[in-house]
Amino acid sequence: MGVIRRYSGRGGRHRWQGVAVESYPDPSVQAVTKQVVVGQDDGARNYSVRYFEIAPGGCSSLDRHAHDHAVVILTGSGRARLGEETHAIGFGDVVYIGPEEVHQFENTGAEPLGFLCVASRKQAAD
Amino acid sequence: MGVIRRYSGRGGRHRWQGVAVESYPDPSVQAVTKQVVVGQDDGARNYSVRYFEIAPGGCSSLDRHAHDHAVVILTGSGRARLGEETHAIGFGDVVYIGPEEVHQFENTGAEPLGFLCVASRKQAAD
Repeated sequence: MGVIRRYSGRGGRHRWQGVAVESYPDPSVQAVTKQVVVGQDDGARNYSVRYFEIAPGGCSSLDRHAHDHAVVILTGSGRARLGEETHAIGFGDVVYIGPEEVHQFENTGAEPLGFLCVASRKQAAD
Repeated sequence: MGVIRRYSGRGGRHRWQGVAVESYPDPSVQAVTKQVVVGQDDGARNYSVRYFEIAPGGCSSLDRHAHDHAVVILTGSGRARLGEETHAIGFGDVVYIGPEEVHQFENTGAEPLGFLCVASRKQAAD
């Protein structure tokens, strides 16, 4: 069965009806929220689509894992670390993070940095 | 290896540097373009992320297949058919299309209807 998940965001804060704004999986990271917009509860078996939002000055944890990520920036600006390199990112930019690649997102702007992130279902926690 | 794919869109037409604007897989459909923003060429093994754009008055083909889709509307407005139901869609709305579910997207507005669509890699053609 299909699902329509209605957008309910305002003022650059992206929200969806019925989608909880969760804390980040790493409890030491306070500035990041996560919303699962497509997940296992919808019947999706192969991947999840999450929306992360990083507050100004905040950053995600420095991660490295076997699964890859596909990220699309929806709002704000900042930096993406990919391996040993750091890249400026802004609206619409796409970041593909390969398996075992060190990665981290940092909000260097004044607005929330928000992005969609696709992950294989079993690795949807991070 | 990670990839940064730079956004180069203007005026609501979403484009990315180095990403070809392809015709729709169904040659009978003229009003739809496809851009692969994350795909096999980037090293992604499990899924692809595509951006589809439907011109005003146009629609995607009426599809039904074993793989599911996760869709996020980025611009424009229209209707999504899911099974026997039709839903109005606009910016930010998320559509999850389950396996074997009949689906079709139609642009009923004056602007392009554009959306990201995640698909398992082997089914990235439609």
